[in-house]
Amino acid sequence: MGALTTQADRSVAKLTEEEIIHRVVQALGVATPPFPEGPGGDCAILDTTRGGRRYRASTVDSVLLGRHFDLACAGHRAGAKLVNRNLSDLAAAGATPSDGLLSLLLGPDVDVAWLEDFAHGAGKAAAKAGLDLVGGDICRAPAGMFAGTLALQGFAHRVLTRRTATVGDALFVTGQLGGSLYGHHLDFTPRLAEGEWLCGQGEVTACTDLSDGLAKDLPGLLGPKLDARVDLTTLPLSNAAQALAKADGKPAHEHALNDGEDYELLFTVATDRADFLERAFRQAFPLTPLTRLGATEAGSGRLLDLATGEPVKAKGFGHFG
Amino acid sequence: MGALTTQADRSVAKLTEEEIIHRVVQALGVATPPFPEGPGGDCAILDTTRGGRRYRASTVDSVLLGRHFDLACAGHRAGAKLVNRNLSDLAAAGATPSDGLLSLLLGPDVDVAWLEDFAHGAGKAAAKAGLDLVGGDICRAPAGMFAGTLALQGFAHRVLTRRTATVGDALFVTGQLGGSLYGHHLDFTPRLAEGEWLCGQGEVTACTDLSDGLAKDLPGLLGPKLDARVDLTTLPLSNAAQALAKADGKPAHEHALNDGEDYELLFTVATDRADFLERAFRQAFPLTPLTRLGATEAGSGRLLDLATGEPVKAKGFGHFG
Repeated sequence: MGALTTQADRSVAKLTEEEIIHRVVQALGVATPPFPEGPGGDCAILDTTRGGRRYRASTVDSVLLGRHFDLACAGHRAGAKLVNRNLSDLAAAGATPSDGLLSLLLGPDVDVAWLEDFAHGAGKAAAKAGLDLVGGDICRAPAGMFAGTLALQGFAHRVLTRRTATVGDALFVTGQLGGSLYGHHLDFTPRLAEGEWLCGQGEVTACTDLSDGLAKDLPGLLGPKLDARVDLTTLPLSNAAQALAKADGKPAHEHALNDGEDYELLFTVATDRADFLERAFRQAFPLTPLTRLGATEAGSGRLLDLATGEPVKAKGFGHFG
Repeated sequence: MGALTTQADRSVAKLTEEEIIHRVVQALGVATPPFPEGPGGDCAILDTTRGGRRYRASTVDSVLLGRHFDLACAGHRAGAKLVNRNLSDLAAAGATPSDGLLSLLLGPDVDVAWLEDFAHGAGKAAAKAGLDLVGGDICRAPAGMFAGTLALQGFAHRVLTRRTATVGDALFVTGQLGGSLYGHHLDFTPRLAEGEWLCGQGEVTACTDLSDGLAKDLPGLLGPKLDARVDLTTLPLSNAAQALAKADGKPAHEHALNDGEDYELLFTVATDRADFLERAFRQAFPLTPLTRLGATEAGSGRLLDLATGEPVKAKGFGHFG
């Protein structure tokens, strides 16, 4: 069963808008609170004591059929991806997930059972993270089209962000990088627990999540006044990156730098506390790989290769169309 | 200049993702606060003292090229529509707009200048309502496609919602109804001031905004245990509804009941306070038409015609495809 169907009686076109909403809400399951905190009104109504913390982190992201997953992808994997890639942004901020709004653009040929499976996967991923899906909308789109957009709110006592590192900070990354197309881009666990924990450590100075690849996301973390000098031989290579390297002959570290969709955390730590932070992290998360990649220095947002001293440019950076 | 272009050098395809985001953020103007409260991080970071009220109202809605506006529609009108139809949902809740996330799906043939005009219109409508556009994302879509999704948060001391009216409440509607296709569906002012004011009146028992037409939205307001008996001769007819009626021969009141996209407020008031509320409203909003349509009674979410006693069904209610 794929996202689209040629059988009219399996498609969303046979249903009314109300029937589609009903089925989606049912499939979202426990992730959807009852009205008026959940769907059914003009707005979802939430108590502002919710979260009970000083900062709210707000983010939005989409998945589109043919771009973020293909026709053969099971609905629940696509739904989980939409939720988890958004949660990865909250993880980078160190925020605890609170509530989200789900918006769907549906072509008339979207398969109803696939859509329910999508909502089921989204609801399950949300429930696992303590995220309430409080509302949304559906909208008719041209045939062949399916897009899901999720807007999230999370809360934190302190919030991690980008561009706040200083000269000499140590640079760390969680997990293993590269080759996400082999499956990781659909099946990953957002680093929420790690992000919340890092947020509680005062020596962590900046954080982002890796969605476009280390080479492209690092400048965003650093901002315009810092470089990072990185030992490329220390890059944590995923098995998929190594397999891809064998298949296409490119060095595995290029996959780790450029493949994107790693959904790992990239963060900086005050240099005199870096050893302590590293030990404490390993104790708190014995199953999460942690790699110290190098250190920041005065510069202009560049990734410098420790071996050559040369800047490493992001590959695959191109035009939008 | 339309939404799509056949000239490659005018299209978004000539730009990088970063360049498109830069142009959109520039065009949003004062509606976009600086980083980290605005765009540029994984999340926008907001202080939870923002709004300073007990409830948060959360809502999302989209506009799609070819469905909510056509190829000939100026960008700023489409952008304003996206913002204003979302603000209309906050108005129905009586909430004050706070912050929003803007998500765009762009085909490679979207015209850059049209897109900037869209963002300009969205930013202007947001700024007028005190709404900050704090973040968003853009995503590549198939040719011919443009969709904008906006997720909004607003705050209120008390929040109006649906399904909270009781037997005997008076039913009111603001403005004039029908014929929105003649222009009102693009150019309207969401009833934010009226919604906030109604929210402050304890005798207002339930409220919604009219997006699908009175006949379809009324059952949502009433819930499953109330009917409303309405004098159809009192329906406030817009000039456009009357012009349409002349053109197509249908009674004008059918347009007022079914056309949709009125973006007016439909609300109920405790019966013994209805006269007082009506006078106070006219004093507070001398330029906003207000019509008392009838009253609620025990039932099942139906609109009953006062003249015949018969239920009036929504027209054009149909399948999704």
